[in-house]
Amino acid sequence: MSARYDIAALKSRLGGIKTEDNPALVRQKSRDFYWYSPTLKRQLDHVTADIIVSPMSEAQVVETLAACHALGIPVTPRGTGTGNYGQAMPLSGGVLLDLSGFNAVKDVALGRVVTEPGAVIAQIDRQTRPQSRQEMRLHPSTYSTASIGGFIAGGSGGVGSIRWGGLRDAGNVIRLKVVTMEASPRVLELSGDDLHKVSHAYGTNGIITEVEMPLAPAYDWVDVIVSFDTLREATEYANAVGEADGLLLKQLAVVDAPVPHDYFLRHQKYLPRDKPVAMAMVAAHAVSSLMGMTKRFRSAEVLFRSDRMSEADLKGLPPVFELGWNHTTLRALRVDPSITYLQVLYPFPNQVELVERIHARFGDEVPAHLEFVRFDGKVTCFGLPLVRFTTEERLEEIMAIHEEMGAPIFNPHRYTLEEGGMKQTDEIQLAFKREADPDGLLNPGKMIAWEDPTYDYRSGKTFLFRGLSEHAA
Amino acid sequence: MSARYDIAALKSRLGGIKTEDNPALVRQKSRDFYWYSPTLKRQLDHVTADIIVSPMSEAQVVETLAACHALGIPVTPRGTGTGNYGQAMPLSGGVLLDLSGFNAVKDVALGRVVTEPGAVIAQIDRQTRPQSRQEMRLHPSTYSTASIGGFIAGGSGGVGSIRWGGLRDAGNVIRLKVVTMEASPRVLELSGDDLHKVSHAYGTNGIITEVEMPLAPAYDWVDVIVSFDTLREATEYANAVGEADGLLLKQLAVVDAPVPHDYFLRHQKYLPRDKPVAMAMVAAHAVSSLMGMTKRFRSAEVLFRSDRMSEADLKGLPPVFELGWNHTTLRALRVDPSITYLQVLYPFPNQVELVERIHARFGDEVPAHLEFVRFDGKVTCFGLPLVRFTTEERLEEIMAIHEEMGAPIFNPHRYTLEEGGMKQTDEIQLAFKREADPDGLLNPGKMIAWEDPTYDYRSGKTFLFRGLSEHAA
Ligand SMILES: Cc1cc2nc3c(=O)[nH]c(=O)nc-3n(C[C@H](O)[C@H](O)[C@H](O)COP(=O)(O)OP(=O)(O)OC[C@H]3O[C@@H](n4cnc5c(N)ncnc54)[C@H](O)[C@@H]3O)c2cc1C
Ligand SMILES: Cc1cc2nc3c(=O)[nH]c(=O)nc-3n(C[C@H](O)[C@H](O)[C@H](O)COP(=O)(O)OP(=O)(O)OC[C@H]3O[C@@H](n4cnc5c(N)ncnc54)[C@H](O)[C@@H]3O)c2cc1C
Repeated sequence: MSARYDIAALKSRLGGIKTEDNPALVRQKSRDFYWYSPTLKRQLDHVTADIIVSPMSEAQVVETLAACHALGIPVTPRGTGTGNYGQAMPLSGGVLLDLSGFNAVKDVALGRVVTEPGAVIAQIDRQTRPQSRQEMRLHPSTYSTASIGGFIAGGSGGVGSIRWGGLRDAGNVIRLKVVTMEASPRVLELSGDDLHKVSHAYGTNGIITEVEMPLAPAYDWVDVIVSFDTLREATEYANAVGEADGLLLKQLAVVDAPVPHDYFLRHQKYLPRDKPVAMAMVAAHAVSSLMGMTKRFRSAEVLFRSDRMSEADLKGLPPVFELGWNHTTLRALRVDPSITYLQVLYPFPNQVELVERIHARFGDEVPAHLEFVRFDGKVTCFGLPLVRFTTEERLEEIMAIHEEMGAPIFNPHRYTLEEGGMKQTDEIQLAFKREADPDGLLNPGKMIAWEDPTYDYRSGKTFLFRGLSEHAA
Repeated sequence: MSARYDIAALKSRLGGIKTEDNPALVRQKSRDFYWYSPTLKRQLDHVTADIIVSPMSEAQVVETLAACHALGIPVTPRGTGTGNYGQAMPLSGGVLLDLSGFNAVKDVALGRVVTEPGAVIAQIDRQTRPQSRQEMRLHPSTYSTASIGGFIAGGSGGVGSIRWGGLRDAGNVIRLKVVTMEASPRVLELSGDDLHKVSHAYGTNGIITEVEMPLAPAYDWVDVIVSFDTLREATEYANAVGEADGLLLKQLAVVDAPVPHDYFLRHQKYLPRDKPVAMAMVAAHAVSSLMGMTKRFRSAEVLFRSDRMSEADLKGLPPVFELGWNHTTLRALRVDPSITYLQVLYPFPNQVELVERIHARFGDEVPAHLEFVRFDGKVTCFGLPLVRFTTEERLEEIMAIHEEMGAPIFNPHRYTLEEGGMKQTDEIQLAFKREADPDGLLNPGKMIAWEDPTYDYRSGKTFLFRGLSEHAA
């Protein structure tokens, strides 16, 4: 599909490694869940790689990177492609490095597991649970499909964050092995603060080939859904429950009416249309304590408790964590494809008031969806509110109003690290890219600081990667 | 020793139950660690029961309480008598109910354990660890000697509180069985918010006969001691480490110079005299992450890491948790018997500044000792500062200055619930005492709200229990 790169030469150099260049298959693996965003859908729809290369070992990763480096072919790594911002989409074409087959669980010990990068998180737990009654601390709601390498390189947190904080927090990743993009790729081991070099760097500065992650005990988690008369009460409840340090929760979210009833179709019969709900995963041995706390809240009504239901009733129901995080958005999108969403931080200690004020302002145009987390030692909430989309201009305006009102946005309608994040250069990641990918061949276009060091993130404009605009032309 | 109660009648009614009335033995079991406080030492030194009754089962507790109720004999429960405020001391004489032999571990399951009240906490772990790689979430630093019933009735938290908060927090006690003091004692089951009725009530409103407690995974805990140039830096470090939600710690304390060197005699060779230290227990799989964070602190120097030491070097060294909590005080007292201590809360979010200001004010008269904990969902620190005691007046003055400066005192020089706590009536405990001990026979003199409902805690005076003054007279 591209005359830019010598794909034939690459194929001949990679004799023993699985490749695929059927354009339909390549195109299919060149996308992720970027289409959640109408903006990204417009910008990235045409993006495709030239070839898929599927290494099954570290040696094959090294071989592939060396060959691509020699030939000047860009490489975009991909776990299982469940990212939401086009992170794994090859903006300059070239090689799509499919790591999904490089996926063994190598070692399980007390408090830790070592795996290859392509291991799907649910698969890891399927090995650690029976062996040692342990499971991953943190996982995205795409537990059943996402790879651990993709989570570390492209995710931030999710289920488990109410207990453990985010992936960026010390202790939530123990050690990584990373291969550099050089003539002779090096294999580096990172731990401690060095992990920040490649965590959430979208694979722009190294390919993760081994991960060591902490494990937590695998309890019997009970799904609980509680309704309230008002969003305010639901938020206060979740905040109080989240702050109860002895209450062992794995997940805690609030979703405003009418979202639960209208979009959580399998649970619909439990969910009155006019009630906001809090949804929690709580350890079986903490249920009575949670129920004790719940009684303190005037309008609280327990709608759903998985430990009180028969197998037959539970059959076909997704776990509550698949009603949370970006599954809330997914379920809404399935019913109403015009819906999109935002990513918001309601900073401690004003989260409860801020949620109320912001959502009072927007009403049903922006239904509230809060995910409670530990953040720098405090409990607060992120928002993944739904947005009943009209125009890109209005979407931008809604985001600007959030920021004005004191709630920073992590823009999910941008494919660059900086615009989707803190709107500033991550000097650690940039410095490591200079070392590990001096020719800029890894996932081009995702790190503005590399592509255009003078770029002004506060300009109000959207960064447009040159490679992408050429391609589009 | 007392003509007040018909002890002979009691003995004949309790035929099958072990009793002891040798005055020397009774006197010995009638005390706890009240002598930490010069004030309590003066007030309580003479206190003794008339007889020890040692039930070995719930039926024997019921039988004992029924008999004492019939004869109007007060009953003061005792676990193993390691409390610090004379909690288990029988101010009105009568029966000392020794529960230390009623101590079986009855059931271990995933996330929970059921035991009898007299079980020593370390004994519980000795059963749960090999069976299920689990251990108690929380324990006092008197781990090896304290009973679980005494901890719930008389303690507040300790080792584990940096992760789980305090005993009062939802989820840290699952269920209790409690026997009432009535003609026909009832056996009640409490869970959820009802636990507050008897938790930390000093046994004034029921005898705990069974506990169900949550368990946490039993990791290999590594002891780490890090020194700093200033108390401020040590405090900032501990605060940051405590707020790292992904860093699995079990204990985190700061002790200012020269306390570590002067009083931690077994560790002395590791401890420079002029350096404040932070002391932590960290899970083996979190050590590299902690070391990563430690490097961020300019003057941090790792003095001690138990995972880097030989068995021979570790021999004879207490674990770091036995340098913390009230073991810090104990070690100081052993070297300098004139020392006493305080219990302080440095409220979030000003803890770091407050610690610095308060200790700058007092200097070496009040050496800082901070215990970092989760408290209502935030990380902050309690203080158990040492006090180089001169007079009771000066001690009161030091406490008053703390409160003026914004650091509430939980006065460890008082034997009543209210004066040692929040200086107000606990209405839940009081209401339950009306139901469960209508004649006021359980541990008399400890609950001011019961003894003198009109008492003004803010009067600035010390409550003097009438029974105690009569006895003293
Ligand atoms: C319904 C839904 C719910 C979601 N919920 C969450 C959530 O709760 N929390 C959350 O954080 N995310 C969430 N996501 C986003 C995404 O699913 C997760 O971040 C997931 O962990 C990504 O894993 P993946 O294997 O699909 O990664 P991919 O999408 O394949 O890749 C993600 C990024 O990592 C890079 N990458 C992949 N593998 C490697 C490697 N071995 N070395 C270097 N770079 C690599 C890619 O280039 C890309 O930039 C959700 C997405 C959807 C669609
Ligand atoms: C060196 C030292 C360090 C300490 N560190 C800590 C610490 O870190 N954290 C902490 O919280 N405390 C601490 N303490 C205080 C004390 O050791 C603990 O609270 C301990 O758990 C008390 O248990 P015990 O069995 O000794 O209780 P006891 O002293 O025997 O009793 C405590 C109270 O509970 C009541 N009681 C006992 N058993 C029952 C029962 N079955 N039913 C009803 N009431 C009952 C007693 O009447 C008394 O009021 C420390 C004390 C010392 C001396």
